Amino acid sequence: MSVRPRFQRVVIAGLGLLGGSLALALKQRSLAGRVVAWGRDLSRLRPAVPAGLVDEVSVDVSAARGADLVVLCATAAQYEQQLRQLAGAAPAGCLVTDVASVKGASVARWHKAAGPLRFVASHPMAGGEKTGWRNAKAGLFEGAACLMTPLPRTDRSAVLAVGTLWQDLGMDVALCSPEEHDRLVGLVSHLPHAAAFALAAATARLGSSEDFQWAGKGWFDTTRVAASDPSLWAGIFLHHPRRMERSLALVEAELGRLRALLKAGKRPALEAWLERAAAFRRSTEKGGK
Amino acid sequence: MSVRPRFQRVVIAGLGLLGGSLALALKQRSLAGRVVAWGRDLSRLRPAVPAGLVDEVSVDVSAARGADLVVLCATAAQYEQQLRQLAGAAPAGCLVTDVASVKGASVARWHKAAGPLRFVASHPMAGGEKTGWRNAKAGLFEGAACLMTPLPRTDRSAVLAVGTLWQDLGMDVALCSPEEHDRLVGLVSHLPHAAAFALAAATARLGSSEDFQWAGKGWFDTTRVAASDPSLWAGIFLHHPRRMERSLALVEAELGRLRALLKAGKRPALEAWLERAAAFRRSTEKGGK
Repeated sequence: MSVRPRFQRVVIAGLGLLGGSLALALKQRSLAGRVVAWGRDLSRLRPAVPAGLVDEVSVDVSAARGADLVVLCATAAQYEQQLRQLAGAAPAGCLVTDVASVKGASVARWHKAAGPLRFVASHPMAGGEKTGWRNAKAGLFEGAACLMTPLPRTDRSAVLAVGTLWQDLGMDVALCSPEEHDRLVGLVSHLPHAAAFALAAATARLGSSEDFQWAGKGWFDTTRVAASDPSLWAGIFLHHPRRMERSLALVEAELGRLRALLKAGKRPALEAWLERAAAFRRSTEKGGK
Repeated sequence: MSVRPRFQRVVIAGLGLLGGSLALALKQRSLAGRVVAWGRDLSRLRPAVPAGLVDEVSVDVSAARGADLVVLCATAAQYEQQLRQLAGAAPAGCLVTDVASVKGASVARWHKAAGPLRFVASHPMAGGEKTGWRNAKAGLFEGAACLMTPLPRTDRSAVLAVGTLWQDLGMDVALCSPEEHDRLVGLVSHLPHAAAFALAAATARLGSSEDFQWAGKGWFDTTRVAASDPSLWAGIFLHHPRRMERSLALVEAELGRLRALLKAGKRPALEAWLERAAAFRRSTEKGGK
């Protein structure tokens, strides 16, 4: 029995870890007829065809002709320009979504740039510290959360279609405003990343790489995301620097509190502080995490 | 073919995650004839027999009669008293080792308290944030590192025998001084734990547990060890508070640096800072981590 795939021609704009994993997942679940990677560097895109990720690659926006879905997977800074190009190439009404970790005021700009295309902002909360399509995994999205941030004016059927796509990839989908998205993701993702970078930076001043042949899961887990792409994360942190500054100051304050407790040497007070932190961490656990 | 196990009677003093995992691993690899748990609370120990972890349980040090190996798996604060008790019950020359995360000056005290027993300090660097023997895993030690910290006066054959035990459990064993151990472990383990606790403490002030239904691997990995036992970690941090204070101050300084970079909004400088942190983190990676 042959089932017509949900999308006939999907354009992935930016074939990195997320774009590549999306391509693999769409293929594996027979959700797309043809998957096309649109990017800037043909020599880096080309091997993705024999690697089985995509059916064709292009550095020309004309690749979006006849597309019924475009997913923006490059860095958010490129979206506005890409959307303007796509608006002149893809069919009017073509669904467009994205994978950016930052939303806020950008979403309204993206909507405007998308013109007659049906844009819906998405943030599939999957990824990893290893970048590039060669690290792509078909299962990257499975079981992870996806926050969609439609505006009041966003086409309702487009929200449904894009939401169904992420669900088809195994994601838990929810809707919220772009502003609530940034508060939430700033807290549950950006702040842990920033703290991990700071821990790695401090540790580099205290010891050598050789010392870490004795490191266990504690070090590797706590700092895993500090190996993430600096350029991507600079963009994310600078999307809402004031919020990040306030949150980072609170982490500094808690480190200072811990230092004061160690200085005072009062074990019950120290244990109580540790217990509050541990209790909060435990309270955030879901099944399987 | 039946092979005589390496140890005839092994006493595990303190049946928690490590003690329980050790019991399982000894059984699974046929390294011990009989495994005995010695502890303080009979009602908590008893179910470990039908659970298949140990052959007998006891709250009396007389359990160490006839033992050829005792492994101290309770908190380090109990070791001195336990060793004095064991010195009066176990056969002279009985091997004794431990699993404490802290060494330094304590090792000499433990040696003294062990009297005629052959004590060798060990730190198998395995564990987890889930405590108690019900979370025990036979494979806990496999592939992990074990630092042994013999003193110049430590019996050489005892060092060899205990080192062989950890190797038999799949560990990479190395020797260093108690002081070098504390510097190393303070850096690669205690500091990441402290930072994770501080991040969790700060996050508790910024959001609610419900927000974390949207958290991904970044949050869960970065703060995993913040769910560790507060009492255990209070003891570890207070073992070398001055060192911890100095290290924590450096993490605060790097967080302050990151805040300043965000305030200045100069992307190249921010990227350079992130890249240095990422490069150090990557330089600590070994195969498979």
